[in-house]
Amino acid sequence: MSANSILLDFSLDPARIIDEISRKDIVRVCKEGLEKYLAGLKISYDMLTTDGYLCLLNETGTGTIVTIRFFEQGLITINVEYYRKDGDEPKISFDNMKMLENGLRIRLEAIRSKHLPPIKRGRNVDVYLTSSDERVIEYDIDRVLFDKRSEFQKIQIVHSRSLGNMLVLDELQNIAEADLIYTETLMCRGTEDYAGKEICILGGGDGALLYELLKENPKHVVMLEIDEIVMQACNKYMNSICGDVLEKRTDDNYEIIVGDCMVHLKRYIKEGRKFDYVFGDLTDIPISDTPTGEIWDFIRMILEHSFQVLKPTGKFMTHGNGVSCPESLRMYEDQLAKLTPKVTFTKSSAFVPSFMEEWVFYQVQRDAAGNANATDSV
Amino acid sequence: MSANSILLDFSLDPARIIDEISRKDIVRVCKEGLEKYLAGLKISYDMLTTDGYLCLLNETGTGTIVTIRFFEQGLITINVEYYRKDGDEPKISFDNMKMLENGLRIRLEAIRSKHLPPIKRGRNVDVYLTSSDERVIEYDIDRVLFDKRSEFQKIQIVHSRSLGNMLVLDELQNIAEADLIYTETLMCRGTEDYAGKEICILGGGDGALLYELLKENPKHVVMLEIDEIVMQACNKYMNSICGDVLEKRTDDNYEIIVGDCMVHLKRYIKEGRKFDYVFGDLTDIPISDTPTGEIWDFIRMILEHSFQVLKPTGKFMTHGNGVSCPESLRMYEDQLAKLTPKVTFTKSSAFVPSFMEEWVFYQVQRDAAGNANATDSV
Repeated sequence: MSANSILLDFSLDPARIIDEISRKDIVRVCKEGLEKYLAGLKISYDMLTTDGYLCLLNETGTGTIVTIRFFEQGLITINVEYYRKDGDEPKISFDNMKMLENGLRIRLEAIRSKHLPPIKRGRNVDVYLTSSDERVIEYDIDRVLFDKRSEFQKIQIVHSRSLGNMLVLDELQNIAEADLIYTETLMCRGTEDYAGKEICILGGGDGALLYELLKENPKHVVMLEIDEIVMQACNKYMNSICGDVLEKRTDDNYEIIVGDCMVHLKRYIKEGRKFDYVFGDLTDIPISDTPTGEIWDFIRMILEHSFQVLKPTGKFMTHGNGVSCPESLRMYEDQLAKLTPKVTFTKSSAFVPSFMEEWVFYQVQRDAAGNANATDSV
Repeated sequence: MSANSILLDFSLDPARIIDEISRKDIVRVCKEGLEKYLAGLKISYDMLTTDGYLCLLNETGTGTIVTIRFFEQGLITINVEYYRKDGDEPKISFDNMKMLENGLRIRLEAIRSKHLPPIKRGRNVDVYLTSSDERVIEYDIDRVLFDKRSEFQKIQIVHSRSLGNMLVLDELQNIAEADLIYTETLMCRGTEDYAGKEICILGGGDGALLYELLKENPKHVVMLEIDEIVMQACNKYMNSICGDVLEKRTDDNYEIIVGDCMVHLKRYIKEGRKFDYVFGDLTDIPISDTPTGEIWDFIRMILEHSFQVLKPTGKFMTHGNGVSCPESLRMYEDQLAKLTPKVTFTKSSAFVPSFMEEWVFYQVQRDAAGNANATDSV
């Protein structure tokens, strides 16, 4: 059950939009085209707007409303909106949408035209997620398996037909069963040697990083995750990516500590405990292009404390942002440049299926020479 | 420059939608929320619909129109629509959209709420493509590099910030520079041994398959592509995936023939020419769930002719469809079951970046035992 918004648009010579006679003619053509799929349409209202014209039509006997707008720039938009109940056929099928668009394009002598698959609104299963650069992506999500608000965030596990089960935190896609490449690129599998190493994961509540690291025979991994409910959800629904590490919580070679990673990092600093690798697997780097505010302070604080528990040759490994967000990546690199001690970094990247975009990962280490600069291995 | 459609929706107790007083109250709350980002809003029209209520507001002094609809099922949809010129700031920024949605959700005591990134309409660069199962995906396409209609199809090469250059045929994403995995999964790299083999490609105009096959030291590859313009476009803009094979057209170990593959297959049958592999790299298997009509006949004809030019142990390799289209995959398999000679098949699959979905590929060969059945290697 959802309200469907069918969106069509046509670009025309702007001159044809202005005068009333050709406008009436265009409305008539649109109405006739639509009436192949909708019962009789009646104009219930129209008005001149500051940049064009708008008219509202309703379908006889139903709640279907059509809005036709003219923009002086030479654009006509058509919205067809109606409530589609479960089991109801769509008013205009996918194939008919194409025919409608093509038919109107020809009759309107449009320069270009476009239709979108219907936007479904008000569904219990939300299928629309947003990329790092604010693009809309409709996922093939068909079920919500888990939906709870913890003290820290909104936690959902949904099922996608092509990506498997997927963890969504605060409406952001985090990791799906199809995302092994995410973990492998974060840890630079095949390049980094974890055998016999001591490792600390900050965050990582989905368990995938811990699970994959343990396959590389590290000496010991400690994981510091604040959200117990994320771990319970992933343990139940994401076994293919986290195995039994969230179920067992501890073993000879690893330990999961539920708590604020900053508290434990500070304790490690006091104790003089050192690691070969620290993984920053916390929230994403913010998209915002002003480097002020809490989030960048938090990121810098995490980095600074991490370097205090890293051995001199140790590495800080973390996820960055989408390739489509160069400003955000640059700002993260600006934070790295400000760090004490001076660091150098490399980057890796991969197309992450559940993100539907290419993602950048950082490997940061102390700069022996004392000057900060980047080596790009993307 | 584009018209922007900002779409919001809120689910409420249906009882609150029906009576006029609470409806007026809801409209007032929505109006107040929107007026944080829009100049004064005035109701210019409202009406009862068969399944609810609609009201139209316009922003003082601008062409911005807000449509608020009530559906008796307990859904309120809000559309904010305006023309955004190049360089204009959005009326409601991404962060403000979130605040608006959250603010209204709380004030309306909504059970759920949602907003989408603005849908851009009427742009010269079309960023919305559709998945195999009719989902809308907004790509990070920023330029059109090539745009021409050949005798056979509409050919575009566009640039995506994360996928590189991308071939789009008749509005369908075909292959992008980031899609090596597509070609490797189609050819089952690492599993199939092409050294010393004779190969025929049907279609394959982007040149990627030919380019990758030639790296495996085949005896000879012949490629039969009908559309000269596709090859010219890919040769110019897709070099990273096709190398110089489209430029050279022929060499000791390969030959590209421009023409209808059926004509040449028939010639090979007459000549008794045989191949170790035939690749079906033509148009996609149709989505339609009725196995009638030209397209399935064409697919079966291609298969039948291919097996006539295949050695007894030869294989027919082809792309299928998205994992999200099980009906379409099943129908292809139904076609395989009808074939003479009897065949067996295996499947491979991979997440193809430019498709933004998991894609299935088929490897079909004569069944020595004479009975058709599938071995699923996905």
